[in-house]
Amino acid sequence: MERGERLKRLKSIEGHVRGVERMVEEGAYCIDVIRQIQAIEAALKKLSLGILNDHLHSCLITAVQGEDSAERERVLSEVAEVYAAAARA
Amino acid sequence: MERGERLKRLKSIEGHVRGVERMVEEGAYCIDVIRQIQAIEAALKKLSLGILNDHLHSCLITAVQGEDSAERERVLSEVAEVYAAAARA
Amino acid sequence: MERGERLKRLKSIEGHVRGVERMVEEGAYCIDVIRQIQAIEAALKKLSLGILNDHLHSCLITAVQGEDSAERERVLSEVAEVYAAAARA
Amino acid sequence: MERGERLKRLKSIEGHVRGVERMVEEGAYCIDVIRQIQAIEAALKKLSLGILNDHLHSCLITAVQGEDSAERERVLSEVAEVYAAAARA
Repeated sequence: MERGERLKRLKSIEGHVRGVERMVEEGAYCIDVIRQIQAIEAALKKLSLGILNDHLHSCLITAVQGEDSAERERVLSEVAEVYAAAARA
Repeated sequence: MERGERLKRLKSIEGHVRGVERMVEEGAYCIDVIRQIQAIEAALKKLSLGILNDHLHSCLITAVQGEDSAERERVLSEVAEVYAAAARA
Repeated sequence: MERGERLKRLKSIEGHVRGVERMVEEGAYCIDVIRQIQAIEAALKKLSLGILNDHLHSCLITAVQGEDSAERERVLSEVAEVYAAAARA
Repeated sequence: MERGERLKRLKSIEGHVRGVERMVEEGAYCIDVIRQIQAIEAALKKLSLGILNDHLHSCLITAVQGEDSAERERVLSEVAEVYAAAARA
């Protein structure tokens, strides 16, 4: 996922958040607001998956094939960390 | 959670999304971007919980105490539905 | 979801866990083990959704229509609490 | 996380599931059952995180440092896949 694509998605998410602000200002029904918030969460998850996928295929390969074992350990730990946060483990 | 508080949080989330856009534009490290996205998701979850809590203590009480059994069923189903979406059940 | 159905699903989940134990004993591939663990989680989520749905249509209605405001508050708070746990809010 | 530790945790989870079966047989309060189910899910998530961590530090390193680019791609895709399932992306 290229930088342009990431930005496009973030802009779309930002617009979605502003849409929810308008809903709240207009006194929209609670459940409809929650549904929109959940849709934004889903879009964020897809974006983070795309970024992780790129990360695995670039930085992680470089680090794991490199000579620096501390750097390799750092990159592997980060992947485990974002997995843990995603799973809320 | 009052309307003002909901809006304040949404504005904060919107600002957070714009902050991530800047990070992406500046070529920030993938894992740092993912961490910020996960922080935004956490803020959205807290907001939806606050809204659901209000909903339970207002609309749901009214519907469950009311005479209209179809309306009661609708409101209870919606709570189950947002739970399912939150749990990704 | 009747008690019999809940038990049936729990027995199935218990069998699934034992299947994963065998996989681990036999040195199965890590990713295959993780996939099975994620499948068990999905089955647990569906079960908890079924139980919550029943709860909303029985205990919650009774409590919300009842005279005891402390009991009503307790039941509504519990629903918010399990939603928060499901969402990891 | 060694095989012995993985098995120990799975046995503990299996016992937890049987405990929930007893709760259901004895007609325990719905919310208490849901709380126990959520506790089992949390234990499963911690286990899958431990296994993923091991996987990153063994199979993934081997595959990424190896000559077989198809194998490398397969292993990286699997990590993205379990992340997606954990995030429900």
